[in-house]
Amino acid sequence: MTHGGDRGSPAAGSASRRAPPAVAVVDAQTPGNVGTIARAMKNFGFEDLLLVDPPALDPDGEAYGFAGHARDDILPNATEITFDELVSEYHTIGCTAVTNEDDRNHIRFPFSTPAELAERLPTVEAPTALVFGRERVGLTNEELERIDEICSIPANADYPVLNLGQAATITLYELRSLTLAPHETQLPDIERVRAPEPLLERCYDQWERLLVELNHPEEKREKTMRMIRRVYGRADPTEREVNTFLGLLRRATDRPERRTE
Amino acid sequence: MTHGGDRGSPAAGSASRRAPPAVAVVDAQTPGNVGTIARAMKNFGFEDLLLVDPPALDPDGEAYGFAGHARDDILPNATEITFDELVSEYHTIGCTAVTNEDDRNHIRFPFSTPAELAERLPTVEAPTALVFGRERVGLTNEELERIDEICSIPANADYPVLNLGQAATITLYELRSLTLAPHETQLPDIERVRAPEPLLERCYDQWERLLVELNHPEEKREKTMRMIRRVYGRADPTEREVNTFLGLLRRATDRPERRTE
Repeated sequence: MTHGGDRGSPAAGSASRRAPPAVAVVDAQTPGNVGTIARAMKNFGFEDLLLVDPPALDPDGEAYGFAGHARDDILPNATEITFDELVSEYHTIGCTAVTNEDDRNHIRFPFSTPAELAERLPTVEAPTALVFGRERVGLTNEELERIDEICSIPANADYPVLNLGQAATITLYELRSLTLAPHETQLPDIERVRAPEPLLERCYDQWERLLVELNHPEEKREKTMRMIRRVYGRADPTEREVNTFLGLLRRATDRPERRTE
Repeated sequence: MTHGGDRGSPAAGSASRRAPPAVAVVDAQTPGNVGTIARAMKNFGFEDLLLVDPPALDPDGEAYGFAGHARDDILPNATEITFDELVSEYHTIGCTAVTNEDDRNHIRFPFSTPAELAERLPTVEAPTALVFGRERVGLTNEELERIDEICSIPANADYPVLNLGQAATITLYELRSLTLAPHETQLPDIERVRAPEPLLERCYDQWERLLVELNHPEEKREKTMRMIRRVYGRADPTEREVNTFLGLLRRATDRPERRTE
């Protein structure tokens, strides 16, 4: 871990591309949670981990055990920082489960949801830190008072308090658009490839032949064919899937025992 | 924990309102992950936890320790079930980090993202289970082959593999619209209350008076006032915030030392 004095300005290295927000964890008690947060950072393309009053992070302990590949860079490169430095050097966004209901008290109101931040932050150029508080009590009112804006994850009113690691995971997931372009995720751009339309038509033709072969009542054929089209239409079947159906339907239509009847 | 034979049909009790999807965890190794998933279920309004080959869940151990309030109901009411029962009784949605690129292999393709599922599932009436696999290797190809559809969380291509508990947390967060109406979250419907427009106008008037009092160059006043309006306009300040500014501006304009000049 590096210490406050060692690091450059928060904007260092951001000349060509805006630096993604840093992630600050205040007074975490459990090394495992720091590791979980580091892993979520790595999963969603974040890099700078700031730790205020962190627990000891033993390379053989839970922080590194829970960090996955983040044990190679994010965790060893984490910066220890004071809360004073954090609020003076960064635009701070404090995450808390409990907001106020209205504007009578400004410590926890107004707030944004992570999805709303994901829409607004890409258009802002400034060193920004997402700030998560300690287990159980989160960020205190005294800390939230010094923070620039509030973020809250919508959850079950009966039990909205998320575990620290889970709250950070969801927030970083929602803000992944700040760090990962669509082509930088593991998912292919195309999520399904619908079979070519002429192949689908051949499949429907084969179904029609089968209906004839089965002596399906003539007056019902049109309606049945419509239903079959609708099922395939909703399923967006792939070429391979339709080819499989086509082969099976051909064999069902032409099977020898039916021919010899 | 109840066992397969003890429970009713998956749809039992859903007469008045569609039952939310069940959450199935296959062959989890770590009780803590089961607890983490149970907590996320409680946070986002899910109820039915199905466990295939679960680890022992000691009421004094990590599963209950990590479960938060889910220790009171979701965890003790979890149902142990076989993989065969799971795929025969539920429409199964298997979650995996790694999909195929195209339709040459159908085990992991086509897929949906959790956000896409959140759009489609509310319109489907059927007992459904979200299925999460064991730590490290997730669901095996053999398991995915028997599952009805695939879900994958978009993440960093360099390291898309999420921890089991974190993957389930994000999926349940995204699918919270299946279980929680907007008024059932802890967040108030209104996230900010902008100050009444006449109050904002009084604030701008007071700024203008201050500019006069400060001998701000007359030719610059219009441009400065426009800038001031724009800053307040973007910030959506509340009534209390504007009242605070108004009071400060009055005192800045009228302050005795300036008067006695």
